[in-house]
Amino acid sequence: MQGTAQTPSQPATAYAPTDRTVPTRSPDRASYDRELVHAILDEAYVCHLGFVRDGAPVVLPTLFARVGERLYVHGSTGSRPLRAAGQADPGLPVCLTVTHVDGLVLARSAFHHSINYRSVVVHGVAHDVTDPEEKRQALDALVDHVVPGRAADSRPANKKELAATAVLRLDLDEVSAKLRTGGVNDEPEDLALPHWAGVVPVQKTYGTPIPDPGLAPGTELPGYLP
Amino acid sequence: MQGTAQTPSQPATAYAPTDRTVPTRSPDRASYDRELVHAILDEAYVCHLGFVRDGAPVVLPTLFARVGERLYVHGSTGSRPLRAAGQADPGLPVCLTVTHVDGLVLARSAFHHSINYRSVVVHGVAHDVTDPEEKRQALDALVDHVVPGRAADSRPANKKELAATAVLRLDLDEVSAKLRTGGVNDEPEDLALPHWAGVVPVQKTYGTPIPDPGLAPGTELPGYLP
Repeated sequence: MQGTAQTPSQPATAYAPTDRTVPTRSPDRASYDRELVHAILDEAYVCHLGFVRDGAPVVLPTLFARVGERLYVHGSTGSRPLRAAGQADPGLPVCLTVTHVDGLVLARSAFHHSINYRSVVVHGVAHDVTDPEEKRQALDALVDHVVPGRAADSRPANKKELAATAVLRLDLDEVSAKLRTGGVNDEPEDLALPHWAGVVPVQKTYGTPIPDPGLAPGTELPGYLP
Repeated sequence: MQGTAQTPSQPATAYAPTDRTVPTRSPDRASYDRELVHAILDEAYVCHLGFVRDGAPVVLPTLFARVGERLYVHGSTGSRPLRAAGQADPGLPVCLTVTHVDGLVLARSAFHHSINYRSVVVHGVAHDVTDPEEKRQALDALVDHVVPGRAADSRPANKKELAATAVLRLDLDEVSAKLRTGGVNDEPEDLALPHWAGVVPVQKTYGTPIPDPGLAPGTELPGYLP
């Protein structure tokens, strides 16, 4: 990763584990590798954002984007987490989680059925982005995170729209990835059982783009679409 | 839905909205329809489970299954939420969220970019399943939720495996769905802009199953695989 305004010095190649990023279960599946964490985050555009409201947990799906060592989470100024972050001082404790399912692992035994997956869990305190320039960059990043190259090919937000949009910032600091890859782990005594065992790959695919019926004449499908 | 042992009387066709299931933003996207909620839940096998640990939110991806009006969440007896639920009395407050991304919505304006999605958010208190028969049924449901028909075609869990597996139960009571469907919502004054606008469908697809190299001779690919 190149140094940026947000990260002037070259960061370490791994995040430092903390008490809450070291899993109690399957610790061999955990990783703190910065490039791996970035790759898992960048492949997603929806995260699940957790926060505490009236003492109870709340988990909501939300669009997010990564800029260097910061994540930006999108929301309306009227939404609960954003209002809470704006009201809370010094910010809103959150847990931001991203998960990709890569395969269904079918073992001969019910017990060893599993999922191949890659996930990232970020703990931290989210802050309302108030600087207009940072907010504008974050919104561009959010659009480009869904479709790279799209922000430059759309009408930028105007002042009213910027004011109606809230953005939360969350630093990548207390972070871990967790992965399961590979095949079936059956017990030796089960290997001769007649049940099929193996992995069914799961992929995210894109269908044929459906143009808006009111497109301006001559508008072509852009090359950056998946 | 048919009445089951868990729900002896015919349930209402919709969940009753509560303060925390009525969204502050885009309330027109919310639904409490029971069949819709069930369909969204049943199409997924991974949920994001939120709970509070030391006052801070934690969100972890977890396998789950629905049996009537109950959800079951899988975990090791060593995992944090399961231990917390076992220790906590009367149970562990959780928020369980499931999200499907159905499409990328590209508007002419950056502001109106969006995602077509279907999500379900369940608030409640999770309890450790201690009854052996309920636990066995829940584990079958977890396997069948990933691949329908698979539980009957695998070696059932033995006593040691059952003891090593913890299952949490969460009743479907305080529940809402939220959806965005359809096309682009641009401002009238933006319709003539030269930017392509429309929806890119997103789908989950399955690849060719990869058999375990040690399959017993003559083991065929089962018909229930996706």
